[in-house]
Formats: sequence, C-alpha cells, structure tokens
Amino acid sequence: MYVLNGPNLGRLGSREPDVYGATSYAGLVETCRALGGDLGFDVDVRETNDEGELVRWLHEAADRSVPVVLNPGAFTHYSYALRDAAAQRTAPLIEVHISNPYAREEFRHTSVVAAVATGTVAGFGIGSYRLALRALADELTD
Amino acid sequence: MYVLNGPNLGRLGSREPDVYGATSYAGLVETCRALGGDLGFDVDVRETNDEGELVRWLHEAADRSVPVVLNPGAFTHYSYALRDAAAQRTAPLIEVHISNPYAREEFRHTSVVAAVATGTVAGFGIGSYRLALRALADELTD
Amino acid sequence: MYVLNGPNLGRLGSREPDVYGATSYAGLVETCRALGGDLGFDVDVRETNDEGELVRWLHEAADRSVPVVLNPGAFTHYSYALRDAAAQRTAPLIEVHISNPYAREEFRHTSVVAAVATGTVAGFGIGSYRLALRALADELTD
Amino acid sequence: MYVLNGPNLGRLGSREPDVYGATSYAGLVETCRALGGDLGFDVDVRETNDEGELVRWLHEAADRSVPVVLNPGAFTHYSYALRDAAAQRTAPLIEVHISNPYAREEFRHTSVVAAVATGTVAGFGIGSYRLALRALADELTD
Amino acid sequence: MYVLNGPNLGRLGSREPDVYGATSYAGLVETCRALGGDLGFDVDVRETNDEGELVRWLHEAADRSVPVVLNPGAFTHYSYALRDAAAQRTAPLIEVHISNPYAREEFRHTSVVAAVATGTVAGFGIGSYRLALRALADELTD
Amino acid sequence: MYVLNGPNLGRLGSREPDVYGATSYAGLVETCRALGGDLGFDVDVRETNDEGELVRWLHEAADRSVPVVLNPGAFTHYSYALRDAAAQRTAPLIEVHISNPYAREEFRHTSVVAAVATGTVAGFGIGSYRLALRALADELTD
Amino acid sequence: MYVLNGPNLGRLGSREPDVYGATSYAGLVETCRALGGDLGFDVDVRETNDEGELVRWLHEAADRSVPVVLNPGAFTHYSYALRDAAAQRTAPLIEVHISNPYAREEFRHTSVVAAVATGTVAGFGIGSYRLALRALADELTD
Amino acid sequence: MYVLNGPNLGRLGSREPDVYGATSYAGLVETCRALGGDLGFDVDVRETNDEGELVRWLHEAADRSVPVVLNPGAFTHYSYALRDAAAQRTAPLIEVHISNPYAREEFRHTSVVAAVATGTVAGFGIGSYRLALRALADELTD
Amino acid sequence: MYVLNGPNLGRLGSREPDVYGATSYAGLVETCRALGGDLGFDVDVRETNDEGELVRWLHEAADRSVPVVLNPGAFTHYSYALRDAAAQRTAPLIEVHISNPYAREEFRHTSVVAAVATGTVAGFGIGSYRLALRALADELTD
Amino acid sequence: MYVLNGPNLGRLGSREPDVYGATSYAGLVETCRALGGDLGFDVDVRETNDEGELVRWLHEAADRSVPVVLNPGAFTHYSYALRDAAAQRTAPLIEVHISNPYAREEFRHTSVVAAVATGTVAGFGIGSYRLALRALADELTD
Amino acid sequence: MYVLNGPNLGRLGSREPDVYGATSYAGLVETCRALGGDLGFDVDVRETNDEGELVRWLHEAADRSVPVVLNPGAFTHYSYALRDAAAQRTAPLIEVHISNPYAREEFRHTSVVAAVATGTVAGFGIGSYRLALRALADELTD
Amino acid sequence: MYVLNGPNLGRLGSREPDVYGATSYAGLVETCRALGGDLGFDVDVRETNDEGELVRWLHEAADRSVPVVLNPGAFTHYSYALRDAAAQRTAPLIEVHISNPYAREEFRHTSVVAAVATGTVAGFGIGSYRLALRALADELTD
Repeated sequence: MYVLNGPNLGRLGSREPDVYGATSYAGLVETCRALGGDLGFDVDVRETNDEGELVRWLHEAADRSVPVVLNPGAFTHYSYALRDAAAQRTAPLIEVHISNPYAREEFRHTSVVAAVATGTVAGFGIGSYRLALRALADELTD
Repeated sequence: MYVLNGPNLGRLGSREPDVYGATSYAGLVETCRALGGDLGFDVDVRETNDEGELVRWLHEAADRSVPVVLNPGAFTHYSYALRDAAAQRTAPLIEVHISNPYAREEFRHTSVVAAVATGTVAGFGIGSYRLALRALADELTD
Repeated sequence: MYVLNGPNLGRLGSREPDVYGATSYAGLVETCRALGGDLGFDVDVRETNDEGELVRWLHEAADRSVPVVLNPGAFTHYSYALRDAAAQRTAPLIEVHISNPYAREEFRHTSVVAAVATGTVAGFGIGSYRLALRALADELTD
Repeated sequence: MYVLNGPNLGRLGSREPDVYGATSYAGLVETCRALGGDLGFDVDVRETNDEGELVRWLHEAADRSVPVVLNPGAFTHYSYALRDAAAQRTAPLIEVHISNPYAREEFRHTSVVAAVATGTVAGFGIGSYRLALRALADELTD
Repeated sequence: MYVLNGPNLGRLGSREPDVYGATSYAGLVETCRALGGDLGFDVDVRETNDEGELVRWLHEAADRSVPVVLNPGAFTHYSYALRDAAAQRTAPLIEVHISNPYAREEFRHTSVVAAVATGTVAGFGIGSYRLALRALADELTD
Repeated sequence: MYVLNGPNLGRLGSREPDVYGATSYAGLVETCRALGGDLGFDVDVRETNDEGELVRWLHEAADRSVPVVLNPGAFTHYSYALRDAAAQRTAPLIEVHISNPYAREEFRHTSVVAAVATGTVAGFGIGSYRLALRALADELTD
Repeated sequence: MYVLNGPNLGRLGSREPDVYGATSYAGLVETCRALGGDLGFDVDVRETNDEGELVRWLHEAADRSVPVVLNPGAFTHYSYALRDAAAQRTAPLIEVHISNPYAREEFRHTSVVAAVATGTVAGFGIGSYRLALRALADELTD
Repeated sequence: MYVLNGPNLGRLGSREPDVYGATSYAGLVETCRALGGDLGFDVDVRETNDEGELVRWLHEAADRSVPVVLNPGAFTHYSYALRDAAAQRTAPLIEVHISNPYAREEFRHTSVVAAVATGTVAGFGIGSYRLALRALADELTD
Repeated sequence: MYVLNGPNLGRLGSREPDVYGATSYAGLVETCRALGGDLGFDVDVRETNDEGELVRWLHEAADRSVPVVLNPGAFTHYSYALRDAAAQRTAPLIEVHISNPYAREEFRHTSVVAAVATGTVAGFGIGSYRLALRALADELTD
Repeated sequence: MYVLNGPNLGRLGSREPDVYGATSYAGLVETCRALGGDLGFDVDVRETNDEGELVRWLHEAADRSVPVVLNPGAFTHYSYALRDAAAQRTAPLIEVHISNPYAREEFRHTSVVAAVATGTVAGFGIGSYRLALRALADELTD
Repeated sequence: MYVLNGPNLGRLGSREPDVYGATSYAGLVETCRALGGDLGFDVDVRETNDEGELVRWLHEAADRSVPVVLNPGAFTHYSYALRDAAAQRTAPLIEVHISNPYAREEFRHTSVVAAVATGTVAGFGIGSYRLALRALADELTD
Repeated sequence: MYVLNGPNLGRLGSREPDVYGATSYAGLVETCRALGGDLGFDVDVRETNDEGELVRWLHEAADRSVPVVLNPGAFTHYSYALRDAAAQRTAPLIEVHISNPYAREEFRHTSVVAAVATGTVAGFGIGSYRLALRALADELTD
C-alpha cells in the first residue's frame, strides 16, 4: 500500500501548524505505518516535491497493482500529468487532503485528480489518511 | 449521532443501481446502526425530500450538540439554507456522498456545504457512510 | 397520467394574465381532465409550492409507472432535487412551460430538468398542456 | 402551412438512426402531409442546406401569412439571419427539434430562434412535427 | 402587515451573535410588534424554513393586499419560486437583510428577489426591520 | 450630518421623472433639512458631478466624524476612489439609491461602495433619504 | 461604388417600421443612387440573403478596387467568412447599420467585421448610408 | 452645436500621430468651426480631462437643447456618469471616435455611451467629426 | 478523394501572401492532384464560399464513401451545419488549416469541426494539404 | 522628477495604518525629497483626488520630458484616461503601490496602467517610492 | 531530429489501448527510427515525466538547431515553461498528439504550446508521428 | 541571500535579446554578486528548470531564514507548489520579473506567487534584480 505525498507535505508540522496541524511529517509516516500494521498491510509512505517522481510512483503502483493513498498537495489544482498517471491504475486510489480544498475560494479549479480517484477524503487533518487507509482496507476486503 | 439524508436518497437501491449501488435505503440504515453499535453510539438515520425539514434537523442537532453525518443529495449544489443551518452546529458535521460530485462535469457548482463541514468523504458508495461514522468516532475520541 | 405543477402555478389566471393567460388554474385542471377523457386516460392534476412534495409525486409516478406532464415552474432554474427525481421514472415525462423560458434573458440557466425529460413543449400557454397530453398518448400508443 | 427544414435534415433516416430515428426524410414528408390532410391543411414540406434559402422561405411565408413549422437544424445555434427572418412573420411559427438541444452540453448557446417563435416542441423524434402541426391547428382555431 | 422570515432566521440570537447581533428572534418579534403598534399597524411576524410555506404566505398577502416586509434569508440567493410569488403582490413588499449580502464575496448572485421588491434595506441589524416598517408606513401614507 | 450626492443627481426632477420621481433637487434638499430638524440634526446637503470633490467631502466627514448619507449615483458602479474614501470614515455612512440598482440588469457590477457602508437603503425614491436619515439617527442613539 | 446589403435588408419598409424606419428598400436604393449622382459616383446597390454571394461581391470589389458600403445585417454577429472577405479589399470599406447594434444587449458579440473596416456608421436609419457614401467620397478625395 | 471632447483629446497631433493622425487639436477646432459655418451652425468646440466638467456641459446642452457631437475619449469604457448625463438630452447627440474602439481587443467593454446616443461614427480620423456634424445637420433638417 | 475548401480559399495567392503564402489556388489544386497521382488516388479539389454547397459535397462524399480533406476556412469557427454534415461520413475526413487557428487569440472558439474529424493538420501552409493526403493514404492502407 | 499620487493618498498615515503604514503623507514627501537630493534630482511630490488633474500633470511631464513615479491609487483599477495620458510620456514612468494590488482578490482587474509603464514596484510600503526613485536614477544613468 | 515525449507517454501500449492504440512505446520508437532512416535522418526518440528535463532537451535542440517533434502529453494544458522553451528554438518544431485534444471537452484550455509551434498534427494515433516526421523532412527540403 | 531563477532563465542573453535584454545569465549572476558585495551580503544565485528543485531551495531558505529574490519565470502563471513553498518562509521574499507579466494579455492569470511575496519588482530588465536586492537590504536594515 502506497501513501504518496506531493509538494511541501514533507514540511508538515514544521510550518503553519494552524493550517496543517501540529503533527510532523515523521508523525504522519508513523501513524500510517502503525495503522497499516493493525490492518495487516505493509504501508510505504513517500513524499516528493517533483511532479515527475510522483508520476513514476503511480506508474510503479499501477504495474504492481498496489493500492494508493494520494495527497497531491498543490498539484491538486493543475497537474494533468498526475491525473493521467492516476487514471492508469489497476487498484483503488484514494485522494486525501488535510484541509478541504473545496472550502478555499482562492483556487478556482477543483481537484483535477478527483475525476479518476476511487474516492476522496478531505478536511480531517492527519485523520484523512487514517480514514483513507481504512477505506482501502474495506475496498480490498469487498 | 444523526445520519441525515437529503432528497431522493430514500430511493436508494430501488433505482439506478449502476450509479448508487445495489444496497437499499433500508440496508443503509441497518449498516449505519450496526456500525454505530460497534462504535458505541446510538445512530439515528433519517431521510427527507424537504429542505426545510433538513434545516430543522440540523437545528435540533445543534441544540443538542449531536454530531452529524450529512448527505445533502441534490441540495449539495444550491441549498444555501442548508449551508447556513450546518454552519450553526456545535458538534462535528461530516459531508458524505455516495458518488463523487466533483467528478460530474454537469454541475458547475461544487458543494455549497463543504465550506462549513468538518470534513468530506465522497465516492465510496455506502462505504462513505461507514468512513464518516468512524471519522466522527475519531473526532469524539480526540 | 399525472399533470404536476410547481410553485405559483396554482395562482394561474388570478395574477399577471398578460404573461400567463386568462385561464384560471381550475380551468387548466378542467382542460387536462377533459382532454384526458377524450384520449381515454385518467388525468390526475396536482399543484404544490413545495419542492419535496413534487419530488415525492415523481417517486410515486416512478413506482407506479405513471406517465407525467411536469411544469416545474420556477424550479426549472435550480431544483436539482427535482431533476434527480425525474431521472428515476419508468414512464415518459414531458416538461411543459406556459411561456418560453428560453426567451427570457433574465435566467442564465436553461432548464435543469430538460436533460432527463422525454421531450419539452413550451410557449403555447394552456395549449402546452394539451400538446403534452397528446404527446404522451402518442408515446403510449407507439 | 409550411414545414421548413434546415441543414442535414434531408438526410434523415439514412444516417445516425440512433440519434435521429429510423424514419427517412421521405417518411417525414409523408407524415406531415397526411396529418395536414387530417387537420384540413395543405402542408408544404421543404428542406435546404442553405441559410439564405431558408430566409427567403420565411419571407415568403410572411408575405402570404402562412403558418410555419421550422426545424432550424444546426442553424439553431448561430443563425441570427434566420432569427431576424422569423421575427418578421405574420402567422404563428413553431420551432421543432427531433432531439432536445437543451440536453446537449456541447452547445453553449441555446436556440437563437426561440425568442421569436410562438412556441417550441423538442425531443419527440418525428412526433415533434406532429405535435407542432396540431399546435398550429389549435392556434388557427383559437 | 406581514413580517416574513426565511430559513434559519428563527435561530436569531442563539447562534453567531457576532454576525447577526445579540437580539433573539423573540426580541425581533417584539420589536416589530411594538413599532407596528406605534405606527398604528397590526404586525404579524412569522418565520419558516420552508420555501413552499413562504410562497404561500406571499400568496396570502397578495390575496389580502397586505404589505410585506420580507427577509428571504438564504433563499435570497436562489429561490426563483419566492421571486415569482413576490412579483404577484398587490401591496408594497420590502426586502430586508440583517447584514449586507452585497458585501459578502462568497455569493456570486445578487438577490433574486430585489428586482420585484418595492425597495431594499440592508445592513442595519435588527434596525433593518424597523426602517422597513417605517418605509411601509410611509408608502401607505403617500 | 452630510447628505452627499454624486453625478447628475442635481438634475433631479427636471429630467426623467418616470424613473427618478417628480421631486426636484431643491425639494430633496428641503426634505432632508426638514427631517433633520425634526430629528435634531443639522443636515448639510451637497451635490457634485466631480469624483474628486466627493472624495474630499468624505475626507472632511471622516476628519470631523460626521455621519454621512451617500448617494453615489453612477459612481456606484466603478469609483473605487469613492470606496476607498468611504472606508476611512469614523462615523456611520449609509448608501442610498432612489431606484434599485440591483434590479437593473444592464450593470454587471453591484455597488463597489456597499462593502464599506454601514447599510444600504434603495428603491424608495426620495423616501430612501428619509429612511437613511432615520437610520443614522437610530445609529447615533444606540 | 458598391452598397452591399446582407440578410433581410431587402425587406426594409415592409416590416417592423418602428425598428428600421418607413423607408422601403426601393427607397434606400433610390436614395443611394441619387446621392451617388450628386457626389459624381456610380452607385451599385445590391442585397442578398446568401453569405456566399456577399463574399463573392466583396471579392469582386477587391479585384476591381471598388469602394464598398457594407451593411452585414445579422451576419454582423457571426460571419467570419464575411470578415475574411472584407479584409482582402484594396479600397475603403465602410460598415453601416440602420440601428445601433452596440445598444442591443441581446447580442453578446460586437461586430466581427468592424476590425477590418475603414470605419463604422451606425444608428442614423437610412441616414447611415448617406453618411457612409459621403465618407467614401471624402476618403477618395483625400 | 457643441463638439465636446474627453480626456487627452486636447493633445491631438502632438503625440502618437500614427494612431490619431497628424492634425492638431487646433486644427480639429478649425475644421469643425469651418464646416459648421458652411452648414449654417455656430459650433462650440471644447475639451476637458475632467469627467465632471463633461457632465456639466451635457447638462448645459440639455437645458439649452443644443445638439452635441461627443468624443468621450477613454471615458467611453467606464464613465456611467457620462452616460447618465447623455441620456438626459433633448436634442440629438452623436458619439464619435477617431479610431474604431470596437477594433481594439484590449478593451473588454464596448462603449457605455452608445446605448443612449442617437448614432455613432467611428474610425475616420478627423473625418469622424465632419461626418457627425453633417449627420446633425441632417437630423435637424428632417 | 475530395479536397474541399471553404470561403475565401479560392483567393489563395492573390491576397495576403504574408499570411497564406505565395502559392495560388491553382497551384494548390495542382499540388493536390500531383501528389494524389503519386499516391494512386484520383483527387477532386473544389472550393466554394457557400456553406450549403460544402454541406452537400460532404453528403455526396458520405454517400459514395469518399475520403475527404476539408479546409473549412472561416466556417471553422461557427458552422455547426458543416460539423453535422462531417459527422455523417463513412470514410476518413481530415481537417486542414494553412495557418494554425489555435494560435490566433482573436477567435474565442476552437474548431467546431475538430470533434468529428479523424485528425487535424494545421500550420504547414500548402504543406498541410500534402500531409493530409498522405495521412488519408495511410488510413486507407491500414 | 515628479512623484504623482492619486486619490486618498494624501491621507496617508492618518488612516488605516495597519494597511498603509504609519508614515504620514508629509513624511512620504520628505522621504522622496531627501532621497532625490541624495540622488541629485529635484523631486516634485504632488497628490490629488482628481483624475483630470492627474492627467494634466502627466501631460506636463510629457511636454517637459520629466520622469515620473506614479501611484495611481484606486485609479489603478479603472482609469483608462490615466492610462492614455501615461502612454504619451517621453521619459520613464514607474508605477508604485504601497501594498500589492495583485494580492487583493476583491479587485478583478489588474492595473490598467501597468501595460504602459516602464516598470512596477509594489508591496514595500513607503519603500516602494524609494525603490522607484532609485530605478529612475538607474534608468537615467544608463 | 528529436522526437520528445512528455508525461505518461512511455506507458504507451501497456495501458488504455482503446484510447491510445495498441502500439507500445517501444513500437513507437521503432516506427520513428525506421521512418527517419527512410527519410535519411537520425531520429533520437526520448520520453520523460519531468517538465524540467523536457525543457532542457528543448534548450539542447535549440543550441544544436535540431528539428523537434514534440508530444507534450498532459503538459499541453498548462506548462508555460515548456512553451517558453519551445519558443526559443532555431529549427522547426512540430506538436503532435495521438488523439485530438481539441475534441476533449474536459480540458478548458487549448494547447499552450500551439502558438509557438511550426505546425500541429493531431488525432492519427501513432500516425501523427509519421506525418510529423514527413512534415519536418518537407520543411528541411524547402 | 538567495537569488532563485525558474525555467528558461539560465538561457538569458543567448536567446530573444529583444525581450529579455542582451545581458547573459553569467552577467546577471555577476551583477547580483557585485551588488551584494557592495551591500555587504553574500549572494547565492541559482537557476533551475525543475519546479521541485525550486521548491526545495525555498524550503532551505525558510529553514535557514535566508531572504530570497525569486524570479519564477513561467511558473509565475501556474505553480501553486511554488506558492505554497514561498508562503512558508521566515525572511522577506521579493518576486522579480525582467519584463512586466501584467502587460502581457496572453496570460489570463496574474502571478500566483504575488499574494505571498513581500513585494514585487517588474519591468526593469536586469535592473529588477538590482532593485530587489536593495529592497532586501532596506528590509533587513529596518
């Protein structure tokens, strides 16, 4: 199970805790791995600021049929490359957001990834990841 | 804990199973109650086609500080009355959608409720409700 | 056969005769019933100002496979709830308008119902209903 | 009584029967003439791919006060010349469409002709013409 | 004289006092009645969360030629049904708002009711109602 | 107390009485002064066609903490200079309009002043000024 | 010197005299010829409802370097074919309109021909042609 | 007869001759006066950079029923104050432009004055004024 | 194999060589025929300024299953009639443009024909036709 | 060297110090003059609320080839008159803003002056003027 | 000669064969090289998911004056960086697309690269590359 | 002090000198370092075509509290990733542009970075960097 994070998400906790919460990125990794263990899954958490790398990880997930939790970060608003890569998957892909991008007026575009995701979880802080991992577990169980 | 459903959701299962899944509304009620029981919550599942009634239920939830899972159905796209009612709550409110409204190009407006919700879960079929109930349980635990 | 009328249509004839004609709502009911009789159909004419009630009548029509003539009135421009209800039908549904909403520049949106209707008849005053009933008769004959 | 058809409508039946039905253009002509006969009218059915010719036929109808059933075809979306010609008439003019142009998202413009038509009938296949002829008969009777 | 209030206005005072002021709905009722008494009018203050009920009250006012002070609440932004009902009145109708909806960027639409109102008073808190009642008194005196 | 009028308002009564009423500008001045006297305020009524002068009057009002009734006339639709000047005030400022600018489709922009005004009164003819003066009196009393 | 008229202009005088004046098309022809005679020019006045014919006349004018007065009629709003043809001329081309198309809100597009015309004269009824002919005479004299 | 010029037009000839021609403003004044003399009219040519002054001149023209040739300059694109003043006139008012504002893509708005002008002449350089004066003479003769 | 050209393309070479190249229309015809000969196809090159004629030629191509190279000229931007005709074909249809319409900001609409074409070749001058003919040859070979 | 300030800038320091800083307008004048002295330039600092006066100062600068630092204030968003005047200059003109207008969502238009300025400096408070004066010095040195 | 491919194009053939055809990326490379050999050119086919790498390859092509066939993939819709790099070239650059991006309604933006390309070939599957290579050969021959 | 440059800026001087000036990128580096030396700062000038690298450099600057001069190049128009990274800084960040992006009509979006920058300097060629470095020095001195 991949948990893939886009630009600036590796900075979690060290900056703007009022927006993104006090949990550090390391804490996020730990949380995902621990819950993955509880659910019986091996969870591989990665982060990158590079669009191309995120695209490659999605290709890798597609080739290996690995389910994906994807937080596209700011790519949410413009990366059609990410969208095309996400569309090619063979296992569920869940889009997560720490805060709710649809509540931010400043972005005119909604998520370009949403249309190709299995589902979306947004607005629960770090909890968005926990819900997404459980959703993946549910999907795989069904 | 309230699970409130907007217009046409009471028809679940009897129509358009390809879009909304084969689970009937009764099945949805059962699922929510069962999971609520597991989580130790009393879950009150309601549905209505009336905007005013949904508004009143949200007032009731606010007065009693009951957490809410809300599927606004088609009201998602235009009911500012619902939005104003949802903004007044004193406990968490989670917006759920069976399918992903952000993936439907035909609606130009995104959810008018999203900006005042604690979080959003969309696209997992009946599973959206299960995730939302767990999210509420998590919120109440924190 | 249902003839369902949305908000303010029950006021027909008593107000703004220059826009909606001099026929009263009672006259409309009579016209529909009489023509229904000629065509061999039982015609049930109803009107409501409540979106939820209109939604329920459409559910009822869907459950009983009754053909519908629907004048959504002002709901034409924003009631996605009505649209979703209309989309679930199992018999023909014809949208009628007394005047032509597409000729009124003030409404930016075209009918949100049109996309799920069998067909549309607009601009013929009370005659729109007569044409719609005949169209239903034709549809049922084919 | 004129039944005037715009571009590509002469191809009816030979192409895209899933969209426009299996009736050929010859069948359409026959249907209109037969119904006209029943209603006691002489029906002159014409088709052209030329905007200018359609304009001239509308001038001719205006000069002779002949009622018109008009299917503008693709001109619906841009021919202001047709609209101006239609605005000059002295007898009723009914706009018909085989399918419902308001249900097609790909056209951003609604009908430029609708604002000057007596009424609109759309979405009933060949039946749209039958309804329009009856509507004309009703109009002339009133 | 009717003072009609739309959705969520019955909650006045109990929620979000920073936006809507500390006066309770009961206080609003009292204020309107007292001022009505001073002006020599019987003031009937009502509130509802139901669009259909508000429409019916406007019909009632029209039938009885009762002047109306209308706070459409969130319906301001989308209820064309309300607008059509308001357009039918035979006595003055004044639109009031506690805060100024034109100052809120989040709503793209201006009031759909404004175009058919006698006048608008907005932004004075509870004082908007007092001004509106005086305006009605002035209108009736003229 | 200042009553400040923007471009073309000095022409009141001499032109287009069907739109702006039969009261002359002199009559407006008299009405405001008389009501001001009744309310115990000295009312200084001014009019100008110059944006810069209106800006200076608002500066003067701000420096002297004088409440303002402002009819921006056509500046309503584009004068951000007026808006910035109005934003600097230290006493209430009420925007008035003789007719209702929100009912005029031809202007795409709503009032650029509204966002910084205490409140708005529109559509009551000369009565808009009377209501605004009373509103100011109420504000000062509170 | 060509005076070229687009669709429906041959109907001048026989229809809608309130919009286009009482002068007949024959009167327009006469007026243009007479003024041409006074100015020492041979004036060839033509009208057509066919876009292609208008295009060919513009080609002819370009080949023979004949100045053109062009009233595109409804083609003003969409005929890019006309625009391309007008762009190829070698002598002045003046766009005329009987009424002012920029005053009609219903057309969202300004003239597609204006950008390639020498100048525009609009709103003077038949007088627009007289002014345009004089403008051509002035241009040729310079 | 007034010839009124808006901002920057007094600079004619001294700047950007490739856009506005080589004629100086003094030459424009002379041209207008000379042609006025030929036509038997006294022509008063004025220019100002002040919106308020232009508004006052239009009031003056309205009071004295003097016909007006108006070049609004840059005010064309935003001065609703000018438009309201121009709407009040009692004699013809002709809008002129040296170049064609409709051919300049950079301005999104068409002339806000056009809707209330008798007619428009644009694109003939100084010749636009000559044509406008002749048009006024024609209007007054009719 | 048809090579069909829309309005103004017959003027190729005689006008605006900087935009459309120095090759004359006769040269274009020759080039297409010669290459057709090399490829073993009979190439019928036609041009017209009439939308209706172009529509008929597309019908003819559809009836005879002839592949088409189509340069719609200015019709690219608005002729939905052409689009509907092109949609009916039974053999490949390739849209060509001498210059690249997508690089011209002045046209807000992209090609209305593109959605129903097999493919598009644009921007290579006369070479666009050569590439399109080769593409047709490739399509027929496959 | 001119430093020209538009509407409300003369109020600097006395109002809204959180937005525009604590420096008074007198302090701004002093800062500009002192830095001008250091750079060896005579700096003439002016402010006005009148669009026409600002236009005249730009004409004066153009006639005397004086470099200009221009803070258009609210005119930034709509004064095409200012833009046309600024376009006529013969020496560098630098647009300055105390805060960054591009960061304010409420204004839909970017600066109408920017397109004709040598460069822009925005967001540095009073420091924007210092940078602009240095930029002018650099430009004059080059 | 470079054939440069943007994000996800290296996946050709392994995913979504119904949209992009059954040819693998290796097959594409082979096809390009073989045709290059036939045309007497050395063809260097590359693919990357990194915007920056694609930019660098375009710089390299510009420095070495190598002609380019560019399939920007999803970058077509937003990469202004790619556009700026493509604008710097010294040899022809041809934009290719396997399917026709102008036929996909879901992307609101047309290609940001098109404006700086020599020409565009779209919609022919792998054949788009073959046509583009021939077009380059033609360009180099001329 | 970092001077960070986005895509294509490393090409400065070698391409399009009419737009970006004759100074090479090496010259830019030298200019920045020299001025930095004069101001007593160590200036680290970097350029990259990779969005991710630019994001990382901004993170690095934030961690070390280093002031930044940022020229986002084409990323100005779409990189929300860059914007989010820039929002996290702890020292001043100044956005620079060689030419003025607000003067280029072709880009519909203003800078997505501007809203989070300390200030903006645009349009002075290489001089924009010099001004920005001085502005940083001023900021640090204050």
